[in-house]
Amino acid sequence: MAWRVPVTSSREATYVAVIGPGGHVTDEETDSAVEVGRLLAERGAILVCGGLGGVMAAACQGASGRGGLTVGLLPGSSRADGNPYLSVVLPTGMRELRNGLIVSVSDAVISVGGSWGTLSEIALAMRTGKPTIVIGGWNVEDLRRGPPGDLVRAASAEEAVDWALAMAEDNRKRGAT
Amino acid sequence: MAWRVPVTSSREATYVAVIGPGGHVTDEETDSAVEVGRLLAERGAILVCGGLGGVMAAACQGASGRGGLTVGLLPGSSRADGNPYLSVVLPTGMRELRNGLIVSVSDAVISVGGSWGTLSEIALAMRTGKPTIVIGGWNVEDLRRGPPGDLVRAASAEEAVDWALAMAEDNRKRGAT
Amino acid sequence: MAWRVPVTSSREATYVAVIGPGGHVTDEETDSAVEVGRLLAERGAILVCGGLGGVMAAACQGASGRGGLTVGLLPGSSRADGNPYLSVVLPTGMRELRNGLIVSVSDAVISVGGSWGTLSEIALAMRTGKPTIVIGGWNVEDLRRGPPGDLVRAASAEEAVDWALAMAEDNRKRGAT
Amino acid sequence: MAWRVPVTSSREATYVAVIGPGGHVTDEETDSAVEVGRLLAERGAILVCGGLGGVMAAACQGASGRGGLTVGLLPGSSRADGNPYLSVVLPTGMRELRNGLIVSVSDAVISVGGSWGTLSEIALAMRTGKPTIVIGGWNVEDLRRGPPGDLVRAASAEEAVDWALAMAEDNRKRGAT
Repeated sequence: MAWRVPVTSSREATYVAVIGPGGHVTDEETDSAVEVGRLLAERGAILVCGGLGGVMAAACQGASGRGGLTVGLLPGSSRADGNPYLSVVLPTGMRELRNGLIVSVSDAVISVGGSWGTLSEIALAMRTGKPTIVIGGWNVEDLRRGPPGDLVRAASAEEAVDWALAMAEDNRKRGAT
Repeated sequence: MAWRVPVTSSREATYVAVIGPGGHVTDEETDSAVEVGRLLAERGAILVCGGLGGVMAAACQGASGRGGLTVGLLPGSSRADGNPYLSVVLPTGMRELRNGLIVSVSDAVISVGGSWGTLSEIALAMRTGKPTIVIGGWNVEDLRRGPPGDLVRAASAEEAVDWALAMAEDNRKRGAT
Repeated sequence: MAWRVPVTSSREATYVAVIGPGGHVTDEETDSAVEVGRLLAERGAILVCGGLGGVMAAACQGASGRGGLTVGLLPGSSRADGNPYLSVVLPTGMRELRNGLIVSVSDAVISVGGSWGTLSEIALAMRTGKPTIVIGGWNVEDLRRGPPGDLVRAASAEEAVDWALAMAEDNRKRGAT
Repeated sequence: MAWRVPVTSSREATYVAVIGPGGHVTDEETDSAVEVGRLLAERGAILVCGGLGGVMAAACQGASGRGGLTVGLLPGSSRADGNPYLSVVLPTGMRELRNGLIVSVSDAVISVGGSWGTLSEIALAMRTGKPTIVIGGWNVEDLRRGPPGDLVRAASAEEAVDWALAMAEDNRKRGAT
């Protein structure tokens, strides 16, 4: 078993969370997630996720197929629950609180499809000023103020990755992270 | 300073989280929050919240005016940030992760108005099967499956408290908590 | 069921964690814990603990017998696990991470007897500069630097409570909390 | 920048936390930490740590020099705080609560030297049944029951790594993790 550390420091890499349901995922959502993972790996980003199946596994599969590094923050205590495409499997034992942790450690968030857990991560990302890009899934609207202007809706995996990396880079330049 | 412990054990009491923005709150939202707090206290429920201003302080004011017990789980480390209507002020230092904690410790959740933090709590409550009642604020819709059937929208504070206590009681009977 | 809010704001109260094993407790340790709880209540402090049995239940019993307010932060998700002497029972679901939370929300820590969980709380309290008073239990020594000078060892419950409240007051005056 | 995923799944790898003070470290402690990191990498284990300087950086330096994978769980919110020898830098924002997280995600814990933070991690590891090996640092003793029998004290880095991997393997076989 041979690990190789990256040429440039991983402190300078961009960490992007890919979030989405762990089951009941459509073919279209799976394809989007695989493509998001693949593109993130090709562009040198580190993929963070909840480590389970569905959208998470699909994104990891896409990334690992391109030699990308993938990190899974599991809700439970058993490492065996991690999907097979993870480079690093961390069983946090924090249950739903790990949703917030996924957001904390990431520079940007891409969601594919929707579940309540996903929505909690989108909301926490927006709350803490992390660039957040949504493919399908939830539509949210403030009944008083209308749809939020700063939540980005992407039409494709490529558009989502472009936005995530550009906005994270922008944040970095402004010293926001 | 005299504390009095409740006659019946607080293990059997119902704990209801009142969530909502800490600022930029309309008069109508403030009135709703005060009324929710008042009704919860009158019906013997313990009020849990994020401990800050806006909707949280209004709900606590309503509850404490009726002799209710109010618990504030602050995001930061300073007890002085708690609003003046709290019986118990707990500075968690957990930042946004405390949103998940508010949900974990509660039997039901009532939201008044909307912010991203509020939406994260609504989503976590739905994710973990806690009765969740919304007054105004967010409208969420799954683009594929439509509006969620089990998120309750209440037209008044009274309706919200009725639903919260009835659904929590129902959960208790089924051994869900 | 009638709750009464304190006359002075609970933001100004002193919160003292009483920590110790949940089982295998000696009669002497139980007596100490009851006495610590009683004295804290008489002096208007709010008692925080892990909410379970053993030292925790004994301290809560002592406090509630004097009308004191007691807060239990349970490791699990079921409120029914709380001991019967708690005014506020909060099932955090955070497992061992709740040990850190007990320390975060408290102004001082008193330990009675010892277990590994207790030692983790003592260490986190020392790490974060919280006054920490030990009755029996663990003896710790840095092999290079000797016994730590700022960990207070008390010979009695009364001495422990005196130290805890005095040191917390001192911290408050210096604006340390 | 090229990442390579491991040949065998990282779910089957052993994750070992190396804990110790972030500053005021002796030359001997630094040497031990470097050696522990080196040996862990050579034997295919993934190194987990708090991501900062001192013992943590020394262990990561040892591991990365042998192509090992190193994961840093930072207490704060800034990735720039991570030491330069980390493969994965995760700013948890959880402050002291991240000490518990380091233990949760690891299969065994090796401590080099001592600080209060280190002691909290040792105690949490013992509390949750994780193999815990100590090089120097803290000496702990239960005043009633004497020194704990299951806390392993190692005389060298090699002995510590041997114990950690053997005990973790043993736990795995018994299905303890």
